[in-house]
Amino acid sequence: MPTPTDTDSTDSDSPDADYTVTPYDVEGDIDYAHLVESFGADALTDAQVRAFPVDHPLVRRRIFYAGRDIDAFTAAARADETHSLVTGRGPSGPMHLGNVLPFYFAKAVQDATGAHVYIPFSDDEKHLLKDQSLESIAGHTRENLRDVLAVGFDPAKTKVVVDTADADVVYPLAAAFSKAITQSTVDATYGDPETVGLSFYPAVQTAHLLLPQLVHGRHATLVPIAVDQDPHVRVSRDVAAKARYEVNKPGALLSEFLSSLDGPGKMSSSSDAPSIGLSDDPDTVREKLHQHAYSGGRSSLEEHREHGGDPSVDVAFQYLRFFFEPDDDRLRDLAAGYEAGDLLSGELKDAAADRISDFLERHQERRAALGDLGDELDAYRLTDGERDAALSRAGYPMDAVVRG
Amino acid sequence: MPTPTDTDSTDSDSPDADYTVTPYDVEGDIDYAHLVESFGADALTDAQVRAFPVDHPLVRRRIFYAGRDIDAFTAAARADETHSLVTGRGPSGPMHLGNVLPFYFAKAVQDATGAHVYIPFSDDEKHLLKDQSLESIAGHTRENLRDVLAVGFDPAKTKVVVDTADADVVYPLAAAFSKAITQSTVDATYGDPETVGLSFYPAVQTAHLLLPQLVHGRHATLVPIAVDQDPHVRVSRDVAAKARYEVNKPGALLSEFLSSLDGPGKMSSSSDAPSIGLSDDPDTVREKLHQHAYSGGRSSLEEHREHGGDPSVDVAFQYLRFFFEPDDDRLRDLAAGYEAGDLLSGELKDAAADRISDFLERHQERRAALGDLGDELDAYRLTDGERDAALSRAGYPMDAVVRG
Repeated sequence: MPTPTDTDSTDSDSPDADYTVTPYDVEGDIDYAHLVESFGADALTDAQVRAFPVDHPLVRRRIFYAGRDIDAFTAAARADETHSLVTGRGPSGPMHLGNVLPFYFAKAVQDATGAHVYIPFSDDEKHLLKDQSLESIAGHTRENLRDVLAVGFDPAKTKVVVDTADADVVYPLAAAFSKAITQSTVDATYGDPETVGLSFYPAVQTAHLLLPQLVHGRHATLVPIAVDQDPHVRVSRDVAAKARYEVNKPGALLSEFLSSLDGPGKMSSSSDAPSIGLSDDPDTVREKLHQHAYSGGRSSLEEHREHGGDPSVDVAFQYLRFFFEPDDDRLRDLAAGYEAGDLLSGELKDAAADRISDFLERHQERRAALGDLGDELDAYRLTDGERDAALSRAGYPMDAVVRG
Repeated sequence: MPTPTDTDSTDSDSPDADYTVTPYDVEGDIDYAHLVESFGADALTDAQVRAFPVDHPLVRRRIFYAGRDIDAFTAAARADETHSLVTGRGPSGPMHLGNVLPFYFAKAVQDATGAHVYIPFSDDEKHLLKDQSLESIAGHTRENLRDVLAVGFDPAKTKVVVDTADADVVYPLAAAFSKAITQSTVDATYGDPETVGLSFYPAVQTAHLLLPQLVHGRHATLVPIAVDQDPHVRVSRDVAAKARYEVNKPGALLSEFLSSLDGPGKMSSSSDAPSIGLSDDPDTVREKLHQHAYSGGRSSLEEHREHGGDPSVDVAFQYLRFFFEPDDDRLRDLAAGYEAGDLLSGELKDAAADRISDFLERHQERRAALGDLGDELDAYRLTDGERDAALSRAGYPMDAVVRG
């Protein structure tokens, strides 16, 4: 794994890159190719993109640029066999625009293929990582759950699991898997964890990633995830490989980071700029983009008209590219106009603001239409039978008289 | 903590003793005074023995020979304030005679003072430590539970908690406490744990030891425990001291080890001799004592009549001293007769066999009278209200919509 050095090398062949990427820390100018190579994942091929069961901008435009065992997932989805996605949330604050996009991606796959979608909420990890009370984390959990439910998943195919609220199933699974995860593996993968909670958390994460197969039986699972979270997938794949459970190694679909408004290389966690919130109204979205979005335009109107802008570093354009302008032709026109100097930074920001606001308006309408959270959530929680199935497949006997 | 060395020193002032005592490993000739000193616990005083709320051979005869914060427990019990004992079981096999004695001690205290008794079953830890399937551990859990229920605790004052079956409350508590337990503390206390499950387990144990106070509010808790388990108490005391929970540090009552049949210095886990089982009939008990119990007698009848035996190393006598001859006068007479050579080894073994068989017969009768385990256990499980109280006192908000 790349570690911070005092060199400024960004050579992808060099073992010393000037960035850090672990599940707990992302810093520096990320060399995505080098990162995937050092993680041992595979770059996404053209054939994989074409075969992927849904034609989505995040895949087509290689925001998801690498992965593990993607072919197995594609094959299962195309053969109408059981297949699942796992995409979770760490509820340490309000969800921002970037946080919700993986859920909309998962919904797009589910709409196209009938995939099971499993959504673990790692409230335990967030308490361990953040200087926040359990009450604060619980409050974010409730609010984040409303946003996830607003995405509109099919309740018959979707399970939401909250680590502390579903501990009756999450903990026994994690405890069983924790026997197959050495402390030295965790030390090497994550850096020496400060507390025993953080040492154990990879076992909880493994429970998340193997849960669909424990509930439904062995099948192809795909974890669409920012590349910094890949170590979690690797640990779960090791457990799947060495433990005697009837599961396949979970696959991964690894993405670049969506940068924060203040530009490439800045992640939202380390950014001073405001994020676009899921409850922002159109005026707020427009204002945030105009005031804070890093621009690839020139410093003066004349210069811009003459030399044009650079969409590859322009945050408004990148939002459109990631998600909000699904039409490739229109995206190309925007890029061409910007590069030619015909389209101004402000106009590009307006275009992004319009698309984002449309998206948020629909999200907000669905969120407002939700009833009591407990009632709404019921349809998405594991049933008693599903809990029993998961525990049994992990090796807990069905006749344990004290179960439940 | 003492570590193994290649010296043969048993000097209690020496930091190098030729024994090892950790919660996972007990080896060598244990210097109990040195051990307690190195752990930082206090030797039991005469005044503490006299004041202890129940006059029990294990205390009176200093089998429990040291402790922490015993006075607070005694004061609460004598003032009829809330007080509790925690004594658990690791269900990795059938319970032996020695395993059940702490439960009978706890029952004696409960009978005398109305103490709450909390009985955690660490089935998770046993799976992590032993080469046994989850199914095997679950089987032992069921059988061990029957033995614990056969002790005859007051269900209104007694709670049985099985880590994996009560994970809905155990895991959230352990996760919260795990933030206050550094990996370096666990490394220093237990030796570098091999797996992340064992790294985390001290947080689970802390949940066990703080649970009575989380359910009933702040009060004096006492953990009667073999001295090798003291590190668990120390970790929980550290958490109680540094976390902002409304709990007192749990107290401890630390005992010597009951040796296995083949003699002093051999623990049952490392012994080749059979243990006395809880289902043994009188003939079996007698046979095991006669065939396997290490004797303090002389090698010939003549020599024994002339020089007498040594009760301090005689296993049959030690069983009587620990528990099975509660009458001090009769115990003294047995020792005197043995030392004088009037009482033969075989006669001493017969005396022990009689007492043990009487004890086991009553235990077996109560065990046989139990109905369906699930039904019997119901009265001893935490109620929903008690689970909520514990989670709330640990900081989880009551209005968490996804609880339970």
